[in-house]
Amino acid sequence: MRLRNIPGAKDEMNQNPNIVISNPSQHKGNWSKLFNNDHPIHVEVGTGKGQFLIGMSMLNPEINYIGIEKYESVLLRALERSKESEQENVKFLNEDVGNLLDFFAPGEIDRVFINFTDPWPKNRHEKRRLTYKGFLKLYEEILNPEGEIHFKTDNQGLFEYSLESFSRYGMSLHNVSLDLHKSGIEGNVMTEYEERFSRKGMRIYRCETKFSPKSI
Amino acid sequence: MRLRNIPGAKDEMNQNPNIVISNPSQHKGNWSKLFNNDHPIHVEVGTGKGQFLIGMSMLNPEINYIGIEKYESVLLRALERSKESEQENVKFLNEDVGNLLDFFAPGEIDRVFINFTDPWPKNRHEKRRLTYKGFLKLYEEILNPEGEIHFKTDNQGLFEYSLESFSRYGMSLHNVSLDLHKSGIEGNVMTEYEERFSRKGMRIYRCETKFSPKSI
Repeated sequence: MRLRNIPGAKDEMNQNPNIVISNPSQHKGNWSKLFNNDHPIHVEVGTGKGQFLIGMSMLNPEINYIGIEKYESVLLRALERSKESEQENVKFLNEDVGNLLDFFAPGEIDRVFINFTDPWPKNRHEKRRLTYKGFLKLYEEILNPEGEIHFKTDNQGLFEYSLESFSRYGMSLHNVSLDLHKSGIEGNVMTEYEERFSRKGMRIYRCETKFSPKSI
Repeated sequence: MRLRNIPGAKDEMNQNPNIVISNPSQHKGNWSKLFNNDHPIHVEVGTGKGQFLIGMSMLNPEINYIGIEKYESVLLRALERSKESEQENVKFLNEDVGNLLDFFAPGEIDRVFINFTDPWPKNRHEKRRLTYKGFLKLYEEILNPEGEIHFKTDNQGLFEYSLESFSRYGMSLHNVSLDLHKSGIEGNVMTEYEERFSRKGMRIYRCETKFSPKSI
């Protein structure tokens, strides 16, 4: 993603502490309290401009959503959208996904979304991919035992890599789709990237994956 | 595959007992003896007309190949090709893949190829797919612990299903390719189906998968 530095982005976030949560580690283990209900919590890592998460929060008021995005100039757009939508069940963290364990207690999260993440195509950057085993370890820690990861991308190489990474970690794959928009799926909320790429006729790849024991 | 009954097909096989092995169960545990060497043994399940296996046998004289095909009218073509090629490292069985355990001892096989197998798209036919867990159990039994399955298909639905089936069986995926002919792979021997479908510009899907403990 091309990044512009936007003056005042951090100030804008500070002025909306009910949407962009500062010091998220102080809520570790207590997110239900912050949301004021015991609904399931779904986290999107690398949430970008928030279109997907805000769309999901409107469709599913009985789910709490937390989007994590380290680039403040990008997250600013999510904040603006969130203010417009006035959804109470979506919050954002201006943080690095690598620090997930600081924010969430073991098993506190019910689902992790990874959408159109940076493919880091060079082998030497493998560790930066959000489906690298180092990140899977973090997701495994914060997800409850039946928790799922839902993954979408337009990037063929990243999808191939991720299928291998998931399976080599011992995870099981579910609802694999190698051409999402031709699969007749219902209730798919599109990200900004997804709208752009699928308009160009490019395939969108998607799968769900779980850490829990295989059901054979 | 559309099947014609070819009169005399069985006779022709009986007249070439060094290529189409009758009573394969009598060689169980002793295939090296039949091949007269201790080279690795690779098995193709549903070998069809044999183009892939005979091509592989020519490329890799240090590997022994066994193709299994239940339809004799199809296997007849493999027999004819095999006679032309005069390769000594390829044999065929006119048998049902479901009876694999009758033919091979535990760990006797080094690799299983599944190429362009019938997708059996209806849910109620799931058990007939050669990547269904019932068949995986058979492959696991005859493969040595480091053995691999190499799987190719043009059928998107079957590939999606198979990725799920492999991972849910606890298998790890390797060298996944969602568009084989654009991946720059070397040494790919094409099946008859593969030639036809890829000429039409259709994607060929491929992966390798192992039963052995995950290498994390």
